[in-house]
This record gives sequence, C-alpha cells and structure tokens, in this order.
Amino acid sequence: MLKIAIIGVGTVGSSVANILRDNKDIICSRAGMQLIPSIGVVNNLNKKRDVSIKLTDDIDLVLEDDSIDIIVELMGGVTQAYEVVKKALTKGKAVVTANKALLAYHRYELQELAGDIPFEFEAAVAGGIPIINALREGLTANHIESMKGIMNGTCNYMLTRMINDGVAYDDILKESQDLGYAEADPSFDVGGFDAAHKLLILASIAYGIDAKPEDILIEGIENITSEDIEFANEFDYCVKLLGIAKKVGKQIELRVNSAFIPNTQMLTKVDGVMNGISVIGDKVGETMYYGAGAGGDATASAVIANIVDIARRGKGSPMLGFKSENLENLILMSKDDIKTKYYLRLRVEDKTGALAKVSSILANHNISIEKMLQKPVNKTCVHLLLSTHTCMEKDINQALKTLEDEIVVTKKPAMIRIED
Amino acid sequence: MLKIAIIGVGTVGSSVANILRDNKDIICSRAGMQLIPSIGVVNNLNKKRDVSIKLTDDIDLVLEDDSIDIIVELMGGVTQAYEVVKKALTKGKAVVTANKALLAYHRYELQELAGDIPFEFEAAVAGGIPIINALREGLTANHIESMKGIMNGTCNYMLTRMINDGVAYDDILKESQDLGYAEADPSFDVGGFDAAHKLLILASIAYGIDAKPEDILIEGIENITSEDIEFANEFDYCVKLLGIAKKVGKQIELRVNSAFIPNTQMLTKVDGVMNGISVIGDKVGETMYYGAGAGGDATASAVIANIVDIARRGKGSPMLGFKSENLENLILMSKDDIKTKYYLRLRVEDKTGALAKVSSILANHNISIEKMLQKPVNKTCVHLLLSTHTCMEKDINQALKTLEDEIVVTKKPAMIRIED
Repeated sequence: MLKIAIIGVGTVGSSVANILRDNKDIICSRAGMQLIPSIGVVNNLNKKRDVSIKLTDDIDLVLEDDSIDIIVELMGGVTQAYEVVKKALTKGKAVVTANKALLAYHRYELQELAGDIPFEFEAAVAGGIPIINALREGLTANHIESMKGIMNGTCNYMLTRMINDGVAYDDILKESQDLGYAEADPSFDVGGFDAAHKLLILASIAYGIDAKPEDILIEGIENITSEDIEFANEFDYCVKLLGIAKKVGKQIELRVNSAFIPNTQMLTKVDGVMNGISVIGDKVGETMYYGAGAGGDATASAVIANIVDIARRGKGSPMLGFKSENLENLILMSKDDIKTKYYLRLRVEDKTGALAKVSSILANHNISIEKMLQKPVNKTCVHLLLSTHTCMEKDINQALKTLEDEIVVTKKPAMIRIED
Repeated sequence: MLKIAIIGVGTVGSSVANILRDNKDIICSRAGMQLIPSIGVVNNLNKKRDVSIKLTDDIDLVLEDDSIDIIVELMGGVTQAYEVVKKALTKGKAVVTANKALLAYHRYELQELAGDIPFEFEAAVAGGIPIINALREGLTANHIESMKGIMNGTCNYMLTRMINDGVAYDDILKESQDLGYAEADPSFDVGGFDAAHKLLILASIAYGIDAKPEDILIEGIENITSEDIEFANEFDYCVKLLGIAKKVGKQIELRVNSAFIPNTQMLTKVDGVMNGISVIGDKVGETMYYGAGAGGDATASAVIANIVDIARRGKGSPMLGFKSENLENLILMSKDDIKTKYYLRLRVEDKTGALAKVSSILANHNISIEKMLQKPVNKTCVHLLLSTHTCMEKDINQALKTLEDEIVVTKKPAMIRIED
C-alpha cells in the first residue's frame, strides 16, 4: 500500500484524487498494490471543491507525516515548491510533480538530492502524452539527433484559428482568454516561456545538458500577422510555435520560436489545443507523440502513471501490464456482434429497379443506406458504391449472401468497414 | 555488466549487435552498466554477415552458459522459438524478443513461466515505436476505450501508393516485392495476420484479454479496387488497414480489417511504410504514437531499449535519463551560431530600387533570398515577404538592424524561422 498526499488541489489535483477513486480497480491492479490518496493540502479550506479527498491547510504536518509515501506537488511556482519537494525528499518521500518551472530551474539539484528516491515528472511536459517515458526508456538505444515539438496548446489553438479561419492575433487572444485557454496575462504562453521550460526538461533527458530559460533563445507568437500566414500558405508551410533541440557536433542548439514548417511534416497535422513532439533518433529515425498537452484529467493521467511506476519500483512492470489474476473479467466479443458502418461495392445490371431491389434486401436485414455513388462499368452493368448507417456484422453478412444470390447483382459483392 | 546472446543474427540481430557497439557509450551510460553482446547464434556459420559479434551454431551451449544474462530471441517462428525462450527462462535468463507470432500464441504461458524474470518484447509491435512502454506504463491511469492502429508497413505502403498514385493492387504488390517490402508469399502481411498478432499483444496489455489469432476477425487489403478508393475520395475518407480494439461494456471487440476512416483523423496522415497507433483512454483522451514499424535499426532500437530496462531493474530509470556524471560533455550552442532558413516581412516604399536595396543589404550579410512575395499595403508602401537560404542567426540579426535603419524600409522588419 502507498499513501499519497496531494499538495495543491486545483484542477489537476482534483483530477488526480478523483481518478484514483474512479479507476481504482484497474490502477491498483496494474500497480500491484493499493494506492491511497489520503490527504490534500490547500491554502483555503473554505473554497468549494469537487473532490473526494480529505483536505488540510497544514503542509508541514503532511510533510512530517511518516505514513505518507508519495508527495504529489501540484502547487506550481518555483520557490515554495522547491522548498516543499526538498523537504519531502529529505524525509525520504517519493515525489511526483507536474511543475515545469521548478524543473526548468532546479532539475539537476533535485536529481542530486533525490539520489535513489523516486522523483517523477511525466506531467511536466506535454500533459498526458508519455513523452518523458518514451525518451527516458523507449529511445535509450539512440543518440537523439533532434526534437521538435508543439508543446503549448494555447499557442497552437491560436495559430490554428489564425490559419484556418483568418482570425487576427488580437481577436483570437481575446477569444482564448474567454475560453479559458489563455490567462489574463498571456505572456507566459504566447511569449514561448512555457514551451521553453518543457524543452529544457526534454533536452536534459536527451542530452544531459544543464541550461536555464535565460540561456536560450525564446520567442513567441505575438508578432505573427496575416501577411505571414499568406506567405506560408503560398509556399505550403504551416506556422507553429516549436520547441527545438538539435545536436550539432558537440553543441546543442536549443530554442523556442514560431516557425514555418513544410506541410509534409506530421507536426503540421497537430491542430488546436493538442500537442505533438517529433523525435529523431540516429537508429530509430523519426517517432512522434501526440495528445492532449493540458487539462485536468489528461495531466492527472501522467501524474498517476508516475505513481504506478513508483509502486512497481524494484519489481518492474508486469510483462503484460496486469498479472493474470488481476483481469477485469472482460470477454472477447463474438464477430457477429460487431457494430459499425459498412461500405459495399455491388456490380448490378444497369436497369430500372436494380437499386430498389438492393435497398429492399438491405432494409430486410435492418440496414439503411447513408451515401451512394453510381459508376458505369460497361453497357450492361454499373457499380453501386454505398455506405450504410451503423448496423450489425451478422446482418451485413446475411445481406451480402442474399445479394450474392440476387439476379441483378452480377458479381460477388465486396465490403469494407467504416470507422467514423 | 550484463552479457547478451543474440539468437538469430539476420537484419535485426545484426543491427542489435552493431548498435550496441556503435552507441555503446550513450547506451551504457543510460543503463548504468556495461552491456556486452557476447555471442550470436546462427544456423549457417558460412553465410557472410556484416556484424561484429562472435558467432556459433550451437544454441544449446549458449542456453547452458551461465555467464549469459539475457537471451535476445530473433529467430522468428513459433515452435522452436517457444522452446528456446522456455529453456532460457528455466535457466533464469532474462528474455527480449521481437517475435510477435510467439506472443500471439504463447504470451500468457510465458508470463506465467517468467514470473519475476524479465521478459520484454517492445519490438514485437510497431518496430521502433515505444507503444508497449506507453501502454504498459504511460497510460496506466486509464481504462483504454479503444485502440486503432496502422501496424503493418507493407500494407500501408501499398494503400498509400494506390490512393496517391492510382496504382492498381496487383501492380503495387509486384513493386513492393521488388522493393523488398513484401515477401514472395505476401499473404501474412496483406491478409492482415501480421497486424493481428500485434493487435493481440496490445489487447492483452490494455485489457488483459487472452485471445488467439483464430478467435478474431482478420481481413486484409487484397480486395480493394480503384472504385473503393474513388468512393473514399468522394466522401473524404482514407483507406487503411487497421488493427482495432474496443471496449464495449464487458466485451472487447478485436479485429483487423481494411477500413475507411475520415480524413480528419490523425491516423490518415500516417503514410508509406510508417506505423501509427491511436489509443483513447477514458482520462487522457486520444494519444497517438508514430514511427517506423520495421527495418533492422528501428526494430533493434526497441530491442535495446528493453535490454536497458532490464539493466535498470530494481533501481528505476535515472531521473533525467543519465546520471550527472555520465554526460556526453555536450555544450549549449550560442544563439549567434544557430543556422537555419528565415522568413522576413519588410514594409518598404513602393518605388523602383527598393527591392534592389533590400537584396543588397542581405547579400552584404551573406544572406541570399530563396522565395519572394510582394503584397500592396497602401498607395506608398508594399510588403516584401521573403525567405532566405540557410544562413546564420548572427548575420540575420545584423541584417535586420541595418534594414531597420534603411530609409526605404518604413517599419521595423519582422522575422520567423523556417524549419525545413
């Protein structure tokens, strides 16, 4: 059993407590032990919160409590958070944090201080995307040649709207603030600083390089105009705010800036509030990681993954993720019960009533047509290409048999499933 | 120190041995110990191979050798490979395998047999993409709602060519065979069986469900025609071979089939021989993983990641990937030395000679223009929007200063970097 204290019970902290409750069975089965969110620390006990965890405003009491195994630091900021995690480590408690600013400034001191005590921070970069995990474990065979990432959802949302909908910078900033994507003072996001903190963390794992935000080039998206977007469109570029790390000989180039990238690159497909990070290893080539870079539940997903890692320390992950006795008792669905949409290719005689015949056979099997295209084959035949609304595999298979025997259908029908 | 034997020294086996030699410093620094590829087992000692490892054809001698810590099984096939890994586990040796067929049939017996002995298989699904790692560790907080993946590069290459270039199925199959992407008997790939093996492995980790290939729906891409692709284009679908796993109540839907998917989905951007797997968790939402699904070095990258994991067992990964004493002595590049392409937005007087003036200032700073667009601003001014060939940050910054002072330039110039 591991007992967990959550320091800072805002959006992410509440999600951590609630997910540990809601998904308890599967999480504990994967961890191989009970994980108990025992206490949350907040500044203001009177504030109403939708969270199931017991709360206190006495942080020292929690840090001194020997029954607490893991401190989840979600208070944000640098100075006070640094003091809190230092104290936690001194007391031998494992630490999980989502605090990128803390790590941008103090990651090497913290590594030193942690020693063999687990200190995990998956949520600090790109929210729910397991990019730290990929870089720290999945790509260890590689020299990392470069990393390029869309690591700030606010900027990416704004740029996507500017590009797709021609909205001007000031208007989209106002909209993002109204939607809660951008802060009242947006400079931390739109100025590139948030992305820079994340980039510095990734660069440490890839290159072991110790740099601070003030050491690197950081530019934001504030000066992008409609002319720039016009030029980009004209020459098939997309505008993104990128965190970039590149190995050039024995030097590491680190910078955050808005950038034109060719529309052939996967990163240009990462739109809206989503994040995406492309990593090029000298052996694996390009891999890319995509997902939600922010949001309470997505970020909490990464925090809890770290808690599970800590629970598994010393014994490794179970080979198949679960031990076989921990199954959820799920069963394989019968093929007949699959439900989806279907596309059918039917070659039929080119005569009045053929479509009526086909539709009626489908209707008799509870299948309704959504879209249809007719293409001539030769003088006597046409292709009916059609898609259905959602129906059952069993019904489609029976309908296909009936269609095959139907005289207006001149060739064995073909079917492809549609995944909307 | 861990000593490694490689059983099967073909494309992937050679890559494993060679990468362990070429990237030795960084790999061992990340692993925290020496990893020694000490012997390779082959059937035919007389075959010429480009590999640095000592070879033998006596597999029993290797399995009996108490100095060998890790068996890397790359022989392929089910029956003999199963005997080999069973024997390795019985002797207490850790196992790393890329053998998807072995796992599709025997993963639960092997988990049972392995007990606390490490048994790893990242390379068995999607080559170099760390998808097992993501699913087994990164997403443990989530009930997995669904997984959809492009897990067979051969099929994806063929479909991409059929869609983009209108090549017919038979022609592209022939081409893929000539290129070495498809086997002489292509049915394992184009029939969906390879993808099914991978899907079953992922489904075990996500759902703990034990199913065999013969239990699930498996269809390939053999029957896709130009009419189907026309229909897909007409209604903005893309055709892909997908492995699909979905949780529907207490049932798990598992199937491999060619599918129409809407072009809005990220998976439709996964083209050519690349693989991509989209996973939807109930908390994190969609995450996607993209990269090379095959090839010697990419697959070896995953095999070696597993070897490093085994070396780290019991102590966890170093917080920042390396211990601080293991740095590669890389240094941060000075901002001035950054080299890239640049886009410049200049507002200039609309008169003869303005462009000449601008070009000449750029040329004086070793900057040459690649592309240019001119856009009217008002009666007296135009925007010159231009991109440069690769040049140095230092030069661009000086050029921007000179341009700002130049009389034909009527507003402070703006710059965006281009990442080709």
